[in-house]
Amino acid sequence: MSKLYVVGLGPGDYEDMTVRADRALRDCDAIIGYHVYVDLVKDRYPDKRTLTTPMTKEADRCRMALEAAAAGENVALVCSGDSGVYGMAALVYELRGEAKEPEIEVIPGLTAACSGAALLGAPLTHDFAVISLSDRLTAWETIEKRLEAAAKADLSVVLYNPASHGRPDHLRRACEILLRTLPEDRLCGVARSIGREGESRELMTLGQLKDAKVDMFCTVFIGNASTKPIGGLMVTPRGYRDV
Amino acid sequence: MSKLYVVGLGPGDYEDMTVRADRALRDCDAIIGYHVYVDLVKDRYPDKRTLTTPMTKEADRCRMALEAAAAGENVALVCSGDSGVYGMAALVYELRGEAKEPEIEVIPGLTAACSGAALLGAPLTHDFAVISLSDRLTAWETIEKRLEAAAKADLSVVLYNPASHGRPDHLRRACEILLRTLPEDRLCGVARSIGREGESRELMTLGQLKDAKVDMFCTVFIGNASTKPIGGLMVTPRGYRDV
Repeated sequence: MSKLYVVGLGPGDYEDMTVRADRALRDCDAIIGYHVYVDLVKDRYPDKRTLTTPMTKEADRCRMALEAAAAGENVALVCSGDSGVYGMAALVYELRGEAKEPEIEVIPGLTAACSGAALLGAPLTHDFAVISLSDRLTAWETIEKRLEAAAKADLSVVLYNPASHGRPDHLRRACEILLRTLPEDRLCGVARSIGREGESRELMTLGQLKDAKVDMFCTVFIGNASTKPIGGLMVTPRGYRDV
Repeated sequence: MSKLYVVGLGPGDYEDMTVRADRALRDCDAIIGYHVYVDLVKDRYPDKRTLTTPMTKEADRCRMALEAAAAGENVALVCSGDSGVYGMAALVYELRGEAKEPEIEVIPGLTAACSGAALLGAPLTHDFAVISLSDRLTAWETIEKRLEAAAKADLSVVLYNPASHGRPDHLRRACEILLRTLPEDRLCGVARSIGREGESRELMTLGQLKDAKVDMFCTVFIGNASTKPIGGLMVTPRGYRDV
């Protein structure tokens, strides 16, 4: 029976893929995804049929993958990062509904919270929240409420989708909300193009983050009250030294 | 120059390791870690020197790794899940301080939030919080505050360390706090022994979770207001179907 793999590719570099993701891409007949992610992998798996859809056509992409699997192909539907964190796994399950076929295997990958944290140092050693600033599918009021709650509870925060062409000022607005609770000098970091050409990291204060230039290739980290700079990196202690 | 890799092994199965983690374990001279994690990998890399320390001796383990690297060995300090999420990366940076040597490379791995989500379905498709119920290094009042904030902001929640011998009732106490805000029938899931022998998943309500038997091999997921069961799995929609 054919199978639909929903594959998290990780940040982009082959080495950051899991062994399972690599096997699924080798075993499949067709690779389906947003063209940027298909382009990341297609040279390594050259004998596969590839199908791509534009960025906002998530449901079309999932239907295409389910149909190809139902027609007898082993299909890898690829997502950047983790296929389960703002990824396609949920939509694939929703579209299949209570049917038993095609068989679905969700293969998790390194999400930007984890790969970006490693690039910046170790900012997520303690409790944290992952919040997307995209209001394409979520009311901005909900996003505001979550930012405020995370700040008040001293959670480190990872911001996905901090900016795009349609929403250049979302990061500024998010910082203004966080600054109601957190100090100007709270340590923050921006991870850019993780695992891809142009990869870089930058540390700054929350006050500086408000005016930072970010784009859709950035993931933003806000430290908790204990986060500190060590050797140019952003480190949140777990507290083991005191044990 | 010798190098210290701080390696996230992922949940436990070789296939869930990244290609980079596998390479670091092949390239290193010594593997250091808590004995359970060293046992997970040592048969696959049989020519390596192995050093283990007991569970609570985190600082000893990191010092041992830094010393071995300073003495000229390439060392892999292994952590389960991600080396940056409740892992050893921060402590290694703290202990090295402002020194430039030995060189440290943090290799992220699949944290239980991501691997457990894939086992349960797709519960983390939208914003979420990761909170540990261990009060060994964190005041219980802080944990309570974070649980309450996450519930009020409709974040999905992943609970690490939901129980241990020393704290068998932490999950019950956490559920009681969540139930002040969330309904009894909120969909929850328990992922057990992810990627290892005895792997299993169980869906239940938050009311049932309060009395669930969990141990240190469990990761617990509490859905947000939109999370629903589909085909025996726990799915949090991102909302793409409505676009």
